[in-house]
Amino acid sequence: MIKEIQTRRSIRKYIDAKLVEDEKIIALMESARLAPSGSNTQPWHFIIVKSDLTRQRLAEISHHQKWMLSAPIFIVCIADIRSRITEDIAMTLNEHSPEPELKQIIRDTAIAIEHLVLCAENLGLGTCWVAWYSQDEIRTILNIPSDKYVVGIITLGYPDESPKARARKKLEDILHYEIW
Amino acid sequence: MIKEIQTRRSIRKYIDAKLVEDEKIIALMESARLAPSGSNTQPWHFIIVKSDLTRQRLAEISHHQKWMLSAPIFIVCIADIRSRITEDIAMTLNEHSPEPELKQIIRDTAIAIEHLVLCAENLGLGTCWVAWYSQDEIRTILNIPSDKYVVGIITLGYPDESPKARARKKLEDILHYEIW
Repeated sequence: MIKEIQTRRSIRKYIDAKLVEDEKIIALMESARLAPSGSNTQPWHFIIVKSDLTRQRLAEISHHQKWMLSAPIFIVCIADIRSRITEDIAMTLNEHSPEPELKQIIRDTAIAIEHLVLCAENLGLGTCWVAWYSQDEIRTILNIPSDKYVVGIITLGYPDESPKARARKKLEDILHYEIW
Repeated sequence: MIKEIQTRRSIRKYIDAKLVEDEKIIALMESARLAPSGSNTQPWHFIIVKSDLTRQRLAEISHHQKWMLSAPIFIVCIADIRSRITEDIAMTLNEHSPEPELKQIIRDTAIAIEHLVLCAENLGLGTCWVAWYSQDEIRTILNIPSDKYVVGIITLGYPDESPKARARKKLEDILHYEIW
């Protein structure tokens, strides 16, 4: 099996003084870029956030998860519905939007994000998926247009903890043969 | 970078006579099981389909993509909203459903599926994401309850082609710093 899939943990404590090298950030972005997507539409965008003030505001709207601030970098991961809907009609997406295309771009962007997460593990970096915020609040902070959807914030830095593996369901509870 | 992220291609032609060893299928499932998910809810289920008749029906409702049938295995990947909504109310999910939880379980199941896809590459197997079917049709064929959502079919087998890498957007077109 791929080592990084086995060793990856969600990291919520990072080494304070240790920044992340820019070339490593670029390597993560390259790994996301290589993800497959429906009809190769590549709906993903990424905002690299290092600013103290912006990270504080993002942690605040993420239900004040203070642990996030120990990560020197947040990667805000965004899905763009314009990769599939090109008509020039105004759109505002949020958690309750019914559009089929929104489901497709969330799927594809999640794939790209997980490439990035596994690549970080390969480079000795820690990450954690965060998605506990409202679309309205996060878009306002980052000036993201209303027709985009923020699939997740990935916190990034050198880990300062080594969590044990969390429990998973048994294989027999999730695996079926030939039919449900 | 992780080698499998670089070498993975969508494979649409598989070696006819070469089945996939059961222990490799189990390894793929283990890699999916290890995926992160919101609040560790693990919304994923997988149906391993080998039957000729079922694969034919799945290819038919996937807009008659005949290439699919050269794959000896289809892994049908399903997201279960009951991992987040436990009230006993009837639900029928489809492409137009507005539920916020549906967006969350699609995201998490896509992560698990991509673990499986990368693990397949590691084991010398080829895969292709397919998601061009209607929820109603695919659920009927596989007897999947109406409160589940089929995130994708992964075709699986030993590759009989070596496609070149497909084009990707430039990094500068998807990467932002500090703000959109």
